[in-house]
Amino acid sequence: MDLPKGLAGVIVDETEISSTAGGKLIYSGYPIAELADSTYEEVVFLLWHSRLPMKAELEAFRKELVSEMVLPSESTRLLLYVAKEPQHPMSILRTATSLLGTTNNVKQDEPPKILAKMLTLIASIVRIRQGEPMKEPDPKLGVADNFLYMLTGKKPTLEHAKMFNTVMILHADHEFNASTFTARVVASTSADYYSCLTAAVCALKGPLHGGANERVFRMLEEIVDNDADPIEYVKDRIANKLKVMGFGHRVYKNGDPRAAILRDIAEKLAKETHNEKYFDVQIKIAAFMLEEKGLHPNVDYYTALVYHCLGLERDLFTPIFAACRTAGWLAHVMEQRRESCLIRPSSEYVGPKAREYYKDHYVTTKGDI
Amino acid sequence: MDLPKGLAGVIVDETEISSTAGGKLIYSGYPIAELADSTYEEVVFLLWHSRLPMKAELEAFRKELVSEMVLPSESTRLLLYVAKEPQHPMSILRTATSLLGTTNNVKQDEPPKILAKMLTLIASIVRIRQGEPMKEPDPKLGVADNFLYMLTGKKPTLEHAKMFNTVMILHADHEFNASTFTARVVASTSADYYSCLTAAVCALKGPLHGGANERVFRMLEEIVDNDADPIEYVKDRIANKLKVMGFGHRVYKNGDPRAAILRDIAEKLAKETHNEKYFDVQIKIAAFMLEEKGLHPNVDYYTALVYHCLGLERDLFTPIFAACRTAGWLAHVMEQRRESCLIRPSSEYVGPKAREYYKDHYVTTKGDI
Ligand SMILES: CC(C)(COP(=O)(O)OP(=O)(O)OC[C@H]1O[C@@H](n2cnc3c(N)ncnc32)[C@H](O)[C@@H]1OP(=O)(O)O)[C@@H](O)C(=O)NCCC(=O)NCCS
Ligand SMILES: CC(C)(COP(=O)(O)OP(=O)(O)OC[C@H]1O[C@@H](n2cnc3c(N)ncnc32)[C@H](O)[C@@H]1OP(=O)(O)O)[C@@H](O)C(=O)NCCC(=O)NCCS
Repeated sequence: MDLPKGLAGVIVDETEISSTAGGKLIYSGYPIAELADSTYEEVVFLLWHSRLPMKAELEAFRKELVSEMVLPSESTRLLLYVAKEPQHPMSILRTATSLLGTTNNVKQDEPPKILAKMLTLIASIVRIRQGEPMKEPDPKLGVADNFLYMLTGKKPTLEHAKMFNTVMILHADHEFNASTFTARVVASTSADYYSCLTAAVCALKGPLHGGANERVFRMLEEIVDNDADPIEYVKDRIANKLKVMGFGHRVYKNGDPRAAILRDIAEKLAKETHNEKYFDVQIKIAAFMLEEKGLHPNVDYYTALVYHCLGLERDLFTPIFAACRTAGWLAHVMEQRRESCLIRPSSEYVGPKAREYYKDHYVTTKGDI
Repeated sequence: MDLPKGLAGVIVDETEISSTAGGKLIYSGYPIAELADSTYEEVVFLLWHSRLPMKAELEAFRKELVSEMVLPSESTRLLLYVAKEPQHPMSILRTATSLLGTTNNVKQDEPPKILAKMLTLIASIVRIRQGEPMKEPDPKLGVADNFLYMLTGKKPTLEHAKMFNTVMILHADHEFNASTFTARVVASTSADYYSCLTAAVCALKGPLHGGANERVFRMLEEIVDNDADPIEYVKDRIANKLKVMGFGHRVYKNGDPRAAILRDIAEKLAKETHNEKYFDVQIKIAAFMLEEKGLHPNVDYYTALVYHCLGLERDLFTPIFAACRTAGWLAHVMEQRRESCLIRPSSEYVGPKAREYYKDHYVTTKGDI
């Protein structure tokens, strides 16, 4: 095998959507730090069209997305059965995403509809599990604001809405991460949109990928609840050859540009909501990890605290990541479809060679062939 | 970009499971033509353990698999709601595979249980859609025989059972095909088995991959029902730049070793069940495609007719492919888990560069920043 394990650093295709080259995240040519001030719908438009929308286009796009934030009744009916299963919400979301494609009247929805419905689907799972009624989207609010409203049941303050827009923007795309690459492989077989998204949810569920944010907060809780020493806690994990969740990145070896922005939001929200104890632990661990292991926090590290401060339950963190990333997944699926070339690599066989079945079978069955 | 499009011929990892090197398909060192005479369970054991089972092991394995060919009651209950949706069975299977992982009591089933339940799941979808009651597996029969029995509701003849074993063996694995590669990418995030399998089903659904077998038979029906000239029909497709389904392969450019075996089975079954008309069309098209385009039939081409002759409906062909391939998917997921390395490639950014958000946003909103 000539290529590095896990295709690390291997350029497998071209993309016009986003780039992490040189450790800088850009969406369609714009640095992420500038886009962080935008709205989620403007950034989604950018990812899908490679340009910012004109004012009227943006308003039409927002309106379309918000008006589509309702589920087909058949989806809701079946979701009611499925969502309460005693399993992780990402498992429910995996089923529900597929179900959405299975219960939609239209054969193949357009990306804006799919994105809008995915957001509502995720909010619905959350509300059903909490035994709370679903909220209708507010036609006056933006897409991210509505999503937060439908998740929590409370209209967000302007400031929280702005922060949540930023969080959703920072999570919206990330070139060929594992779930996006999964979606592209599935798209390359000419499978439908919902198959691509379902597969992406499957990959995001993994603890080495989207599943990390939830585990970050579990760590913070364990430390705070037990009044443990954060450094000892982390040392212990490392001594046991366990990963410290929220650190390290396949691409960013000198720091994740999203983490700096999220750190500031986490700090502000932690103060406002009296969650400084968690933030303090995070700062201590981050300093230690950098000094001892040379590892920087990634996107999941501070996001975990942001979600907590916004009143979201720990096991919903990864589904919310899925909601944000759906925009990027769809952008990549559309791009892959335009290529219309099957992604089908090769492998190097390193197993036993030149065996003879009849001979060996004769032995294993002791002459009883 | 240095690599060929679609990773064609690019060796992305090592495997001990199977090989297509030199246009020959081998499972764990044994040529596929020899294994075709084996039983499905012996081949599954081989794929999972890199060796043939001893007689007692094989019997224990068969017993275990057959005894696990029942679904948890909660899965069945929910499947009854989902399976009748007016969508393609592969869409139902995508939902149902995920649902199986969502409704299983045990947190993480072992591969034998998962394989057994996937077979029953697929048979259940078929039976529910036909409004027929589910059959219990027969403890005296083999795994493939039971699957065919549960699909059709009729105990297969010895000869049909033998043929079906061969078909399942030929479909059981195929190194890094698109659905298997998808399953491996998902496994590399440390996601659970059901997430890996659900994603694999998503990829198999695509018409360029597993979705082809159904389309082969649709073509045969169209030709036979309209008394059309097979050559004219195919010429027409090619003139319209449409692919002729069941031909061509990413790896086998000089013929698919499985197709030769399947051709013989198709011929025998076609005679026995008075379906020669389809087989005759197939032979004519295959001769033409080879002569005119240098393209050979792939695994899907004759399989389509084999399934039809065994009494299976056209839209079930791809779900049955999924049933067969589940063994291979699981083998690769287990192998990928042992590697514990995230599959996360890179991409080359070819979109617009060095844009400034505040400047452009000022323009798009006409000064209304
Ligand atoms: C993201 C991740 C999968 C990247 O993996 P990768 O590119 O394959 O990096 P590697 O695993 O090769 O890491 C390089 C070294 O740093 C160590 N390392 C990386 N991340 C670590 C972490 N979070 N905690 C402790 N050590 C870590 C590795 O063990 C390895 O050490 P070694 O050279 O002594 O074996 C990995 O950093 C990780 O598992 N992080 C935790 C999960 C997480 O937060 N995921 C979210 C990503 S957005
Ligand atoms: C399987 C498949 C995706 C392999 O794709 P690939 O390795 O990318 O091969 P290519 O598409 O580059 O094929 C090479 C040439 O043969 C042509 N070709 C390949 N399969 C063809 C088919 N089934 N019908 C008509 N032309 C075909 C291609 O158009 C291409 O021609 P060009 O060089 O003039 O453009 C492709 O052969 C295909 O789509 N087949 C039909 C679907 C099918 O049966 N899939 C099941 C596979 S087990």
